[in-house]
Amino acid sequence: MTTDLLDAYRLLAEYGLLADAGKYDEWLGLFDERCSYYVIPRENHELGLPAALIFCDTRAMLEDRIQALRVASKYNIHTDRHIIGMPRVATTGCDSLTVEAPFSVFQTEQEGDTRLFATGLYRDRIERRKGTLKITEKMVLLDTFAVPSLLATPL
Amino acid sequence: MTTDLLDAYRLLAEYGLLADAGKYDEWLGLFDERCSYYVIPRENHELGLPAALIFCDTRAMLEDRIQALRVASKYNIHTDRHIIGMPRVATTGCDSLTVEAPFSVFQTEQEGDTRLFATGLYRDRIERRKGTLKITEKMVLLDTFAVPSLLATPL
Amino acid sequence: MTTDLLDAYRLLAEYGLLADAGKYDEWLGLFDERCSYYVIPRENHELGLPAALIFCDTRAMLEDRIQALRVASKYNIHTDRHIIGMPRVATTGCDSLTVEAPFSVFQTEQEGDTRLFATGLYRDRIERRKGTLKITEKMVLLDTFAVPSLLATPL
Repeated sequence: MTTDLLDAYRLLAEYGLLADAGKYDEWLGLFDERCSYYVIPRENHELGLPAALIFCDTRAMLEDRIQALRVASKYNIHTDRHIIGMPRVATTGCDSLTVEAPFSVFQTEQEGDTRLFATGLYRDRIERRKGTLKITEKMVLLDTFAVPSLLATPL
Repeated sequence: MTTDLLDAYRLLAEYGLLADAGKYDEWLGLFDERCSYYVIPRENHELGLPAALIFCDTRAMLEDRIQALRVASKYNIHTDRHIIGMPRVATTGCDSLTVEAPFSVFQTEQEGDTRLFATGLYRDRIERRKGTLKITEKMVLLDTFAVPSLLATPL
Repeated sequence: MTTDLLDAYRLLAEYGLLADAGKYDEWLGLFDERCSYYVIPRENHELGLPAALIFCDTRAMLEDRIQALRVASKYNIHTDRHIIGMPRVATTGCDSLTVEAPFSVFQTEQEGDTRLFATGLYRDRIERRKGTLKITEKMVLLDTFAVPSLLATPL
């Protein structure tokens, strides 16, 4: 249980730091071969409405999205900073666990202004693969349905 | 000591996540049967001035406050997001510890705007009751004396 | 490894809480006798440009800076609040480790307004001295080159 908690801490820390450093290959490496990644407004999710801002239910879709970011994104150049709060382990199974953690993301644009971009909750399903924890499902529940600018870099 | 630290991490993570999810019964369950909860501007506290924004020195007062929130609050509808920093264990006694942790709270209102609401320091007295950590005193030292809007949901 | 991680958590938590409490002697006590402390815009650092906003490559320089803060600083009175994200251990050696952690700092000025001041990444070299972890090098990589106001209190 303690090991699970600390491994979850490590995984979440890596998740944010790799995204902010733009190390997207390593960031993708935190996900399992079979994985899904959703960004859903909290309001929709609580009402049981399926509309998502980002809906990748295969790893290929997630890789495609990252590829688009690398190749096509010329607009809204900025850097991100994830501040992720301590997680709680919601459920634990055999070699798998569900983890919840609050997050905030700040963006700094080319003029040098740093602003709050979004806050929300991660709900991650994590499984142990050959000793290493991998994300098999990541649900990003955004506190707002109104993202203030382009949702390009991963949350 | 390591166990204490990790248990404090767990308790703080639960504290923020339950409040933000509006699960107030479970949130109250983190407090001991005999507990107190204060919200005090840092400035007042440092000057030894007793004026508090919220002053609940019994559990009944805290429950009453939550009940008011559930039944009466029709104004300033919003959701909260606590981002709580890693705590330090300030003092450790027999079955009790004092913990300090920095926090930030963001609010999202019905139009979808997410804004910084407040920052400050938690100073918690925690005691072990039948193996579980319970909050016996929570002091919320707010960085500002000027809360930008209604202080309704718990900090 | 688990011990290292938890010790890094403790050290970072102390770092932020002592700075925000204005306990600068204890804050300096987290650094080794031989230490350096740099604040560098992320952009400069990534381009290999050496210009830093603060460049203390001896402990005496860091102490001097803190002394100036205590004696001379009469302008821009405010309090700070560090929210530091969970760290990752980047490299581990014999009795030393390198740690990365994201941070955000909020400032509250005398009128009571709390605002985001800066975000960035800590890259710390930490060494074990008589059983206690001490910072031997701290690099504060700021997300912006344009700090919104005076950089007085330590980041």
